[in-house]
Amino acid sequence: MTAETTVPADAEPHPQGIAIILFSGDLEKTWAAMILASTSASLGMTTKVFVTFWGLQTFVRPEKRITGTNWMQKMLAFMARPGIKYRKMSQMHFLGMGPWMMGKLAKKYGVSSPAELLEVAQMMGVEFVPCLMTMDMFGLTSNDLIDGLGEPVGAASYLADVASGLAPIFI
Amino acid sequence: MTAETTVPADAEPHPQGIAIILFSGDLEKTWAAMILASTSASLGMTTKVFVTFWGLQTFVRPEKRITGTNWMQKMLAFMARPGIKYRKMSQMHFLGMGPWMMGKLAKKYGVSSPAELLEVAQMMGVEFVPCLMTMDMFGLTSNDLIDGLGEPVGAASYLADVASGLAPIFI
Amino acid sequence: MTAETTVPADAEPHPQGIAIILFSGDLEKTWAAMILASTSASLGMTTKVFVTFWGLQTFVRPEKRITGTNWMQKMLAFMARPGIKYRKMSQMHFLGMGPWMMGKLAKKYGVSSPAELLEVAQMMGVEFVPCLMTMDMFGLTSNDLIDGLGEPVGAASYLADVASGLAPIFI
Repeated sequence: MTAETTVPADAEPHPQGIAIILFSGDLEKTWAAMILASTSASLGMTTKVFVTFWGLQTFVRPEKRITGTNWMQKMLAFMARPGIKYRKMSQMHFLGMGPWMMGKLAKKYGVSSPAELLEVAQMMGVEFVPCLMTMDMFGLTSNDLIDGLGEPVGAASYLADVASGLAPIFI
Repeated sequence: MTAETTVPADAEPHPQGIAIILFSGDLEKTWAAMILASTSASLGMTTKVFVTFWGLQTFVRPEKRITGTNWMQKMLAFMARPGIKYRKMSQMHFLGMGPWMMGKLAKKYGVSSPAELLEVAQMMGVEFVPCLMTMDMFGLTSNDLIDGLGEPVGAASYLADVASGLAPIFI
Repeated sequence: MTAETTVPADAEPHPQGIAIILFSGDLEKTWAAMILASTSASLGMTTKVFVTFWGLQTFVRPEKRITGTNWMQKMLAFMARPGIKYRKMSQMHFLGMGPWMMGKLAKKYGVSSPAELLEVAQMMGVEFVPCLMTMDMFGLTSNDLIDGLGEPVGAASYLADVASGLAPIFI
């Protein structure tokens, strides 16, 4: 993007897109990722989000409570309730009071919730792609995940996007 | 940056700049961000830091103790004292002993403190830009923040910098 | 990478490389970094990993227990045991039960451990470079670190890689 090119001076420059890795399942980082993704798409930038590890828990259907096929996977799901509505804050969680206050403040100042932003982002064409390896390790199937996600892929697929010019953002 | 261009071979390549999102308020990550920002500017790279969420607390004036206009905002400020001198470590904080030890070790080995590095970075032209949405949610006004920051902006402004070629770094 | 260039249309595009900052010492993030680094190298992308702060602890030889030359450094090493086999989870550590379960699940689903991935990455030419400043502050010498790492360098060296086109990823 910084180099002069042979493109005619009046050509529209292609805005550089972004390839987010959403690794965290914290409420605040989920929020940040959703704001970046929906805003990026609204600017016409190619926007992909590779959801992995704790970040994948956010994309489990809200009605699912316990996921996985063996006791370890079930226990992991039990300890960290999946679903975008059940994200915890990384600090000042205070048994849920922190998130409740953040929600109150967001509403007061017209800031959309992570769940609303996810919907907007999906409508605007942001591609959310689950990490195949995380699905295996946590025992998740495509049926456990919300609608509209891409086919599960590995890190190679994510890195191919980076190699082709999307700027990586690890959240 | 990787593509051959029409620029004459002897032209100085434009070094790619960076656009940091400082999301964390942890002492260690604040330190890392300040080192990257000041070093990047010293190399002649365009350097911007978008300060958001817990990261914005770092840029509140040290004399401010409680910020915000409603009880929830005041309580958030009370629980996590703002200001660059009051950052806590993400682990081994030990009621302040961790940061004290890190400060001791830094001094011993000639490493500048985050506050010193911030001053250097600002002098070298690093642009620190507060996140408007975070200011709203935490009830912060420009008067609450240290001098020399840019006008508060939204995520779209940050992403426009990325679209124009600055490499994003999320800290 | 997004710009049209003077390169003939049939030329192989140079895949953009990545320059990871491995800042975290958490088990999960160590894992993510090793997966990204080894996969990136396997795709033929230039791959460097700058290991700093808690991330550097991961590269201390496993037989070292206490490192550093003064009591503060020794205490830091004592509190957070260095070495790639002793990484803790950022959540659900449960006195080691979390990592044990993750290890079990990884083995069951054919996912390599961080230590195995590190070995693969090194064999594939990923350059792991320790942060000089962190070595000073933690009192680490090259003898304390595992074999095959690059010469310790500062942030300027890392940023020069970014300036020359490697995409930064802060983990």
